[in-house]
Amino acid sequence: MVVKNQIKLIKSLQQKKCRIQQGLFVVEGVKVVQELLASAYKVYKVYSADSSVFDAVEGSEVVSQRELKQMSGLKNPNIVIGVFYIPQPKKVDFKDWVVVLDDVRDPGNLGTIIRLCDWFGIGQLVCSHNTVDCYNPKVLQATMGSITRVNLVYTAIGDFLGKSNVPVYGAFMDGHSVYRTKLPETGILVLGNEANGISKQVEALVTARVAIPQFGNQTTESLNVATATAILLSELRRG
Amino acid sequence: MVVKNQIKLIKSLQQKKCRIQQGLFVVEGVKVVQELLASAYKVYKVYSADSSVFDAVEGSEVVSQRELKQMSGLKNPNIVIGVFYIPQPKKVDFKDWVVVLDDVRDPGNLGTIIRLCDWFGIGQLVCSHNTVDCYNPKVLQATMGSITRVNLVYTAIGDFLGKSNVPVYGAFMDGHSVYRTKLPETGILVLGNEANGISKQVEALVTARVAIPQFGNQTTESLNVATATAILLSELRRG
Repeated sequence: MVVKNQIKLIKSLQQKKCRIQQGLFVVEGVKVVQELLASAYKVYKVYSADSSVFDAVEGSEVVSQRELKQMSGLKNPNIVIGVFYIPQPKKVDFKDWVVVLDDVRDPGNLGTIIRLCDWFGIGQLVCSHNTVDCYNPKVLQATMGSITRVNLVYTAIGDFLGKSNVPVYGAFMDGHSVYRTKLPETGILVLGNEANGISKQVEALVTARVAIPQFGNQTTESLNVATATAILLSELRRG
Repeated sequence: MVVKNQIKLIKSLQQKKCRIQQGLFVVEGVKVVQELLASAYKVYKVYSADSSVFDAVEGSEVVSQRELKQMSGLKNPNIVIGVFYIPQPKKVDFKDWVVVLDDVRDPGNLGTIIRLCDWFGIGQLVCSHNTVDCYNPKVLQATMGSITRVNLVYTAIGDFLGKSNVPVYGAFMDGHSVYRTKLPETGILVLGNEANGISKQVEALVTARVAIPQFGNQTTESLNVATATAILLSELRRG
């Protein structure tokens, strides 16, 4: 049986403030818990409603479906909840491309972008302080475990870009066609907020503006930020 | 005041079965209603909680916020609900690329794919009968009005592909790198279901298997279908 305080603690990790206070985050589902256990992430505790799953993991506990439901952030909880320590981010290295996000707010978008970075072997993802927290459960749900393979750093991106010595590419509607841009081996790629794009302060630090050309009707909206990231990372890598 | 039967009718359009019965669908939000009004879609009725919006539209009605809430499928309804007739799909033409979806189930994915087709000027989107309904309110929410510029056809895609005379490209994990594939001017591009990919029956009709190469860690999951579509449509168009 799980003590009430413990249930309260796990449940509280749905909120960013509590995650920071506790230095812990929570993930749900067998597969993603397995991926985190197999990674450098340090486990705090695994709760499983099925004794045959994770019984060999140190610090794992078999719980009732009712207890799991009390801890879960999902309407229909999975059979496993894992609680892990939030790691210290590593120093950003510039040996390869670095992706920078300027206030991406939607958890699904951030999750998809992390997954894309992983797919395309981009190991460094730098986020502005107003970008949605990567340990938000909805972000983790969308990453499918990719978060274990990408170094995520939250920082004041203005300062970060100001101190960098590599070219800074920014995605803009009115930029130069990415298809006709010769991209270097390393650099920084900046993507902006869903509604407002890249902020004025960050725009001033961009050294090259790129765009994904539109082939359809010109009345169309912009591309979604995760979709644009997919195409731009593909362009970085396709050679 | 809106009569009760009318409220019941609008509310019922959240369900596919009722949409088919009535030949109507519903969208919410000023911008998307405007886009549909400006298109070839035939309007049935527009309900607005703000008399200054859409008062000039024939068949528009000012309603109370309470009535709007009763008709809406959203937790926090917008100020405008538009009801439109489901159009007859046009015959698919093969002058340009045609995208085919084999049982894409997630409304957000279909919405994003419709928006991508619009961005890249792909006018023909053919869906298997088990693909999520494009008049599902969540799909419409994700398309941002792009649905007015893409011809969507639901059909038995096995028969459709069997009768087509153009090359059929399918997206597979183990396909030939799309970056090293010479793509023709016209053809069909098939994308599969989120969990199972392209079905065996459809796979047999594919004439060329393409893949988006993975650059990161080989343990990663596949790309999300909307993300894969973004990259593949970009490859079709970039030249």
